[in-house]
Amino acid sequence: MSDPRFYPPRNFAALPPEHSDYARSRVVILPVPYDSTASGWVGSREGPAAIIEASGNMELYDIGIGAEPYLVGIHTLPEVAPHTGDPQAMVERVEQIAGELIDGGKFVVTLGGEHTMAVGAARAHARRYPGPSTAPTEVGALRTGLSVLAFDAHADLRDSYLDSAYNHACTLRRILEVAPVVQVGLRSAEREEHDYIRSKTLPFHSPQEFRRLGPDAIAGLLSDSVYITIDLDAFDPSQLSALGTPGPGGLLWDEVSELLETVARQKRIVGFDVTELCPPLGPRANAQLAAKLTYRLIGLALRE
Amino acid sequence: MSDPRFYPPRNFAALPPEHSDYARSRVVILPVPYDSTASGWVGSREGPAAIIEASGNMELYDIGIGAEPYLVGIHTLPEVAPHTGDPQAMVERVEQIAGELIDGGKFVVTLGGEHTMAVGAARAHARRYPGPSTAPTEVGALRTGLSVLAFDAHADLRDSYLDSAYNHACTLRRILEVAPVVQVGLRSAEREEHDYIRSKTLPFHSPQEFRRLGPDAIAGLLSDSVYITIDLDAFDPSQLSALGTPGPGGLLWDEVSELLETVARQKRIVGFDVTELCPPLGPRANAQLAAKLTYRLIGLALRE
Amino acid sequence: MSDPRFYPPRNFAALPPEHSDYARSRVVILPVPYDSTASGWVGSREGPAAIIEASGNMELYDIGIGAEPYLVGIHTLPEVAPHTGDPQAMVERVEQIAGELIDGGKFVVTLGGEHTMAVGAARAHARRYPGPSTAPTEVGALRTGLSVLAFDAHADLRDSYLDSAYNHACTLRRILEVAPVVQVGLRSAEREEHDYIRSKTLPFHSPQEFRRLGPDAIAGLLSDSVYITIDLDAFDPSQLSALGTPGPGGLLWDEVSELLETVARQKRIVGFDVTELCPPLGPRANAQLAAKLTYRLIGLALRE
Amino acid sequence: MSDPRFYPPRNFAALPPEHSDYARSRVVILPVPYDSTASGWVGSREGPAAIIEASGNMELYDIGIGAEPYLVGIHTLPEVAPHTGDPQAMVERVEQIAGELIDGGKFVVTLGGEHTMAVGAARAHARRYPGPSTAPTEVGALRTGLSVLAFDAHADLRDSYLDSAYNHACTLRRILEVAPVVQVGLRSAEREEHDYIRSKTLPFHSPQEFRRLGPDAIAGLLSDSVYITIDLDAFDPSQLSALGTPGPGGLLWDEVSELLETVARQKRIVGFDVTELCPPLGPRANAQLAAKLTYRLIGLALRE
Amino acid sequence: MSDPRFYPPRNFAALPPEHSDYARSRVVILPVPYDSTASGWVGSREGPAAIIEASGNMELYDIGIGAEPYLVGIHTLPEVAPHTGDPQAMVERVEQIAGELIDGGKFVVTLGGEHTMAVGAARAHARRYPGPSTAPTEVGALRTGLSVLAFDAHADLRDSYLDSAYNHACTLRRILEVAPVVQVGLRSAEREEHDYIRSKTLPFHSPQEFRRLGPDAIAGLLSDSVYITIDLDAFDPSQLSALGTPGPGGLLWDEVSELLETVARQKRIVGFDVTELCPPLGPRANAQLAAKLTYRLIGLALRE
Amino acid sequence: MSDPRFYPPRNFAALPPEHSDYARSRVVILPVPYDSTASGWVGSREGPAAIIEASGNMELYDIGIGAEPYLVGIHTLPEVAPHTGDPQAMVERVEQIAGELIDGGKFVVTLGGEHTMAVGAARAHARRYPGPSTAPTEVGALRTGLSVLAFDAHADLRDSYLDSAYNHACTLRRILEVAPVVQVGLRSAEREEHDYIRSKTLPFHSPQEFRRLGPDAIAGLLSDSVYITIDLDAFDPSQLSALGTPGPGGLLWDEVSELLETVARQKRIVGFDVTELCPPLGPRANAQLAAKLTYRLIGLALRE
Repeated sequence: MSDPRFYPPRNFAALPPEHSDYARSRVVILPVPYDSTASGWVGSREGPAAIIEASGNMELYDIGIGAEPYLVGIHTLPEVAPHTGDPQAMVERVEQIAGELIDGGKFVVTLGGEHTMAVGAARAHARRYPGPSTAPTEVGALRTGLSVLAFDAHADLRDSYLDSAYNHACTLRRILEVAPVVQVGLRSAEREEHDYIRSKTLPFHSPQEFRRLGPDAIAGLLSDSVYITIDLDAFDPSQLSALGTPGPGGLLWDEVSELLETVARQKRIVGFDVTELCPPLGPRANAQLAAKLTYRLIGLALRE
Repeated sequence: MSDPRFYPPRNFAALPPEHSDYARSRVVILPVPYDSTASGWVGSREGPAAIIEASGNMELYDIGIGAEPYLVGIHTLPEVAPHTGDPQAMVERVEQIAGELIDGGKFVVTLGGEHTMAVGAARAHARRYPGPSTAPTEVGALRTGLSVLAFDAHADLRDSYLDSAYNHACTLRRILEVAPVVQVGLRSAEREEHDYIRSKTLPFHSPQEFRRLGPDAIAGLLSDSVYITIDLDAFDPSQLSALGTPGPGGLLWDEVSELLETVARQKRIVGFDVTELCPPLGPRANAQLAAKLTYRLIGLALRE
Repeated sequence: MSDPRFYPPRNFAALPPEHSDYARSRVVILPVPYDSTASGWVGSREGPAAIIEASGNMELYDIGIGAEPYLVGIHTLPEVAPHTGDPQAMVERVEQIAGELIDGGKFVVTLGGEHTMAVGAARAHARRYPGPSTAPTEVGALRTGLSVLAFDAHADLRDSYLDSAYNHACTLRRILEVAPVVQVGLRSAEREEHDYIRSKTLPFHSPQEFRRLGPDAIAGLLSDSVYITIDLDAFDPSQLSALGTPGPGGLLWDEVSELLETVARQKRIVGFDVTELCPPLGPRANAQLAAKLTYRLIGLALRE
Repeated sequence: MSDPRFYPPRNFAALPPEHSDYARSRVVILPVPYDSTASGWVGSREGPAAIIEASGNMELYDIGIGAEPYLVGIHTLPEVAPHTGDPQAMVERVEQIAGELIDGGKFVVTLGGEHTMAVGAARAHARRYPGPSTAPTEVGALRTGLSVLAFDAHADLRDSYLDSAYNHACTLRRILEVAPVVQVGLRSAEREEHDYIRSKTLPFHSPQEFRRLGPDAIAGLLSDSVYITIDLDAFDPSQLSALGTPGPGGLLWDEVSELLETVARQKRIVGFDVTELCPPLGPRANAQLAAKLTYRLIGLALRE
Repeated sequence: MSDPRFYPPRNFAALPPEHSDYARSRVVILPVPYDSTASGWVGSREGPAAIIEASGNMELYDIGIGAEPYLVGIHTLPEVAPHTGDPQAMVERVEQIAGELIDGGKFVVTLGGEHTMAVGAARAHARRYPGPSTAPTEVGALRTGLSVLAFDAHADLRDSYLDSAYNHACTLRRILEVAPVVQVGLRSAEREEHDYIRSKTLPFHSPQEFRRLGPDAIAGLLSDSVYITIDLDAFDPSQLSALGTPGPGGLLWDEVSELLETVARQKRIVGFDVTELCPPLGPRANAQLAAKLTYRLIGLALRE
Repeated sequence: MSDPRFYPPRNFAALPPEHSDYARSRVVILPVPYDSTASGWVGSREGPAAIIEASGNMELYDIGIGAEPYLVGIHTLPEVAPHTGDPQAMVERVEQIAGELIDGGKFVVTLGGEHTMAVGAARAHARRYPGPSTAPTEVGALRTGLSVLAFDAHADLRDSYLDSAYNHACTLRRILEVAPVVQVGLRSAEREEHDYIRSKTLPFHSPQEFRRLGPDAIAGLLSDSVYITIDLDAFDPSQLSALGTPGPGGLLWDEVSELLETVARQKRIVGFDVTELCPPLGPRANAQLAAKLTYRLIGLALRE
């Protein structure tokens, strides 16, 4: 219905059918309201709905990058139902759905929910970009196959946590099994995780290291095809406090934005996720930041 | 999409397409997120979204009346856009849309937003059920034409308020111009409004009078075809505090439910509205009550 | 300023100068935002401001008692400053101010703040209505001098608590030293307090006992001149949850209202206080109830 | 440490060691902060901590039943860790722990978390009270073995939900496999659940039926040894709105309290649970009600 | 009343009569609690009251600028009543009142409420400082007449929006009709608005451009007499999230403060407004920032 | 109990007995939930519980300083009970307890509650490090005896406020009586306080002065033994808004962290406090910052 007396529909960016029908859309938003493995404060299952709601309160022209990302078409799927029996089954469900969408020619944007869901999304992409090696330390080999750029305050490198290998604290450990990972934002880790990073010389960077190296150096560590996974706790809590595990000393909007612009100029972004927004724990402006981040990244990934 | 791996869509009662497509639905939900004339606490524009969200957290079988109201089909329209220039234009917009829906054979359920929107909805119905007289005191004439059953804590009988004849404080005065009104829940009025009630001997009842008379007596004051308008502040704030103008001493869920069942048995309910839920001002359970009230009233109005 | 383009001032009931100037007002509202002895949840210092704010969102005609209480004039004083050195000094400050107001011919309504402040207000009244005896058990002696009607969920009969004889848990013990007390709403007490009640046969009543006896019997226990002290936790938390020490099983609005009407008909109410509203802990509708209670009690106490 | 300069410890009822050491305590509080199968609003994992916090804000003498329940000793265990891999494993963990405690001579009080945890607790008790038959319809056989009194707004009779037989919507179905269940508070069910109740003639009662029958009739349906499971959504949301699935038309505090007193007089209560408090969704007074309910039930179950 | 036992009155900065009486005050605070054209999140009608409440929690000596701004006298008017019939009428009401105050020799500080109200306030000033030209691009002509310094995240340049030319999205377009505007903070605009800025070469600056140019260059664009309009969403949401339309990447307190100090040194500030604080959407500290900003700007504008 | 099926206990950092038993712990956490002299917004009595709760949601390895602070043992005491009769008595209670702990060989970390409590803690330390002089201006004399590093937005130099010399606004004035104070973060003071700073040439620094001087210069002003008192309002409200008296323009996490690292390298930190967190007034991430600050400062003070 395009009757001007009605609000536009409550999909991502509140787009009319000509820019949001499945068939005409290059981008598909996949909302995954799942947070069953959360060990701290809970509520990220409300993240996708809050991001989508906030995205309707946003200009369609992004003056910061001089683009109208919606013109490629953005279709919003219904929310994926939770499998409450087992997080592994849930990860596999996300992987299966994302894979079907990629095979259908779509650019997939997954909205969490907890960061664990990124394992399913990243796997679906990695299996379609096989490289000669996924050993994370052989950085020279990264020119072929997919690499992953991860924003995160935590190492997420535990092999298992609270009885599950698919706990949110194991996310990057699981993703490392299928693709090399370059991480930015690190400021929380257990000693074993820190030892693991050093022994494998993983390219995981604190905000201070990132500021020292600069965005070009980080982008230089990635292969040509890049999947981006964003745990929003990489941001400083001053800008984003609606998080289950916030921690001071994080990245700022301008820094993240500049790194994403650099990567977009130099590489091909093939998909991404935005996770861990926990709406009850912070002001609504946090959902707005997540919505704008999602929209800008669509614009950067798919601009001509 | 009926893929069991996805949540059902976020429409009223979270219904799949076979029970919520426009063409197959007897009922149409018309959300009107408008609250621009509010003089006290504000936020009822978030009411429709909160009721629809809560309605997905509800059994489809209503054990209280032994019915499955969704089987008649319930279609949820997008939210009506606000006309921010003038409340009268907004009332006319609602009247026009509701009228088109009635003419198309739909049973219209309007969700507010402020009570003012009921003027548009009630007018659309009243003009399609012309009676010999709308003078409110001639109760004997009520057998023909439409009558209105209003739940409200306030008299809403000012002729104009804060510079507008379409302020929420004038709602029942405007509705009285097109149909006789029987009111229940009255416990707030200015002296002029109380004098007006007495001089016109309007059938407006406090909760105490309602308890004394009983539901059959109230139903007996109505004509055969009834439109119901519900300002949720008729309820006691213990059960519903998310209101812009709450006041102690109100009606209870069981009382309202029994009166609605009585009216449904004896009359024909032709449409209704549920207004004034102000989600930020009370617990989420209030939206749940409003959703269940809406669903039960659909079941009562349209059961075989 | 009576320019119709402006809101009325933010005093109690939002009254214009002709009904709220000090000289022309029979009633004086004395706000005491003090909560320093709170042992549980805190915030009643925000109570007076919340009640006054809510009172502007209220009809001036009270349809429940058919009266316009504001016609006697209601002046709102600024908030009494806290004495943070010692609660006894704070109680004495309230007693001194209230006494000056009574001597100036005013009817004093104290808004808390914690219930402790009622000690100062009740003392100021009791010293101006000396009776032959204040021994609480000599009920027969109550015809002369002042008696106190207390609404409270707690016995408040400790002699000292947390190192102070002026803690909120000692309120009624302190008031008993100057006047006999009839209490309604009791459902929380330590064993020592319960033993004290039984040994002195104090007329303290649970909600169940109150319902059994009825309002006339309670009113019959009071002397001709009555001061009323209301700790709002006497109400059931379903109707009023914004409390530092809520407890289930309390009084309902209609019951309290009926008792107050009975007392007003049979006795002379010489002053009252409304205390312990803790706005951050419940919905705004709670402040509305407290405002309407205050307004109605003014109407009952001073009607012709 | 019994230094009077310090607050008492933050255990249930804030008891000093002589009334809360494990060895000297008859009662053990088992907090289970688990809510991973929640399908609606989430947060009951914060329930146990909120109940324990509120219990420190409560008189130790319960004037309503004239008893000091803490004198039997109440020990508070640390919170049971979540098994985030699989809800069945979590239920078995609760069953195992509760069983060890019962075998050690303790009276076990489980605090949820979601109602699912009651399956583990009820099973642990049922296996220690084997009866001749657990077929739920043979009410006459109930004199021997354990029976279960369930408070719940929902039927909770689905065999499986959202891919798990241990979802919260299956709780009473699972408990029926080990003991007969008498339910009170029913007002939400799917049609299949209602058909199941009727085909098996299960003694499940709506609030209206409960009021018609009275507490003695309900108690008469139970065997001599009774386990009580309380999903707090049995209460009316006016008294308890901090719930993931609230619904209007529920039980009131005085009704629940009277039924528990009746059962305590006529039967032997061997254990109980209190579940589904979801603190972020309602006022703090809700945790206070849950704490007082828990404390009173300890007093009723174990009084001389 | 200057009795030290009472709190000072709840006016701006909680000033006693000798510094806040109308006759003795150079500054007048004009609160306008209006937000009826809001298209996103709502609540700025509570902004004026929150700023005034927070201003009482502030030192009267501003150590940052070494001044005591209250010494010139600051009178707080009651809140302007909303005209709910039409936003244009409301803008005209503000213009009329502000004009009368200016003509009476007052320095007017308008507190919103939505940014639209600035149209009325700016017009009242502009009509009293007629310049040879208001064409916005003729910067050379700015030496005479009034110019406007606008802080805003949005362009606010639509000619009409949601059926009204007086919607908040049209604010700067309306102000441009009466005076040239220099804007700082721009980071949200529709493409048409961006094209309009470029075609007219309007001096609208993003935070990045502002940092590149520096405060002296911005001040150099203004005429001698300056009106300042502040939409608080110019600030970064990390410092101010209580906004209806927040957006990341904004200005910081120290930057805004330095620009205001520069303008105050070089120009004459003749009036200002502070708008769009939406208290329910962020922490109370946001109101504190707005209060301190208002107080400092009074000190800068009127210091000797 | 070290059963892995249970959560660790709710002490600071959620440590097992081997790292938190009193006898084996070098550090003792002393929680003081007192806020009775607060003159503005209230709630810091909930600060200690919120910090301890958040500390369980934190890695035990602090990657920022490459240390595991918990290895020295951290014991959490129960909360100090309030003395509600007089703030001076409460300060003396804290001084007495802290003194006993220091004499028993413990490193004392006091968690507020209001900043006033720091007077007791600082005195307990100062009396055990007597220096030749405590006159604050004789900076050259600082090599011997204790000096105090204070983080604060306010001067806190009033001699008495609201009738008490132990009001929170007098904290640093009281501490200056026992030791010289170097302050950082100043941006709020009354004129008399500013005059006092200048006349005594006290080393009190605004954030701008601190940035100009750098951490080494500040550390150079301190004697060898340093007590640190942190009023969290020294932080910028963007990073910490849960404060009773927030003010814009404050210190950032990285700045505070760098200064603490510098002091720890050059001096001996003998004890510290963290005060004024007011949990209801900001997001939970604020408690997380306070917990991490406390943990890092333990690590810095006691590392080998």
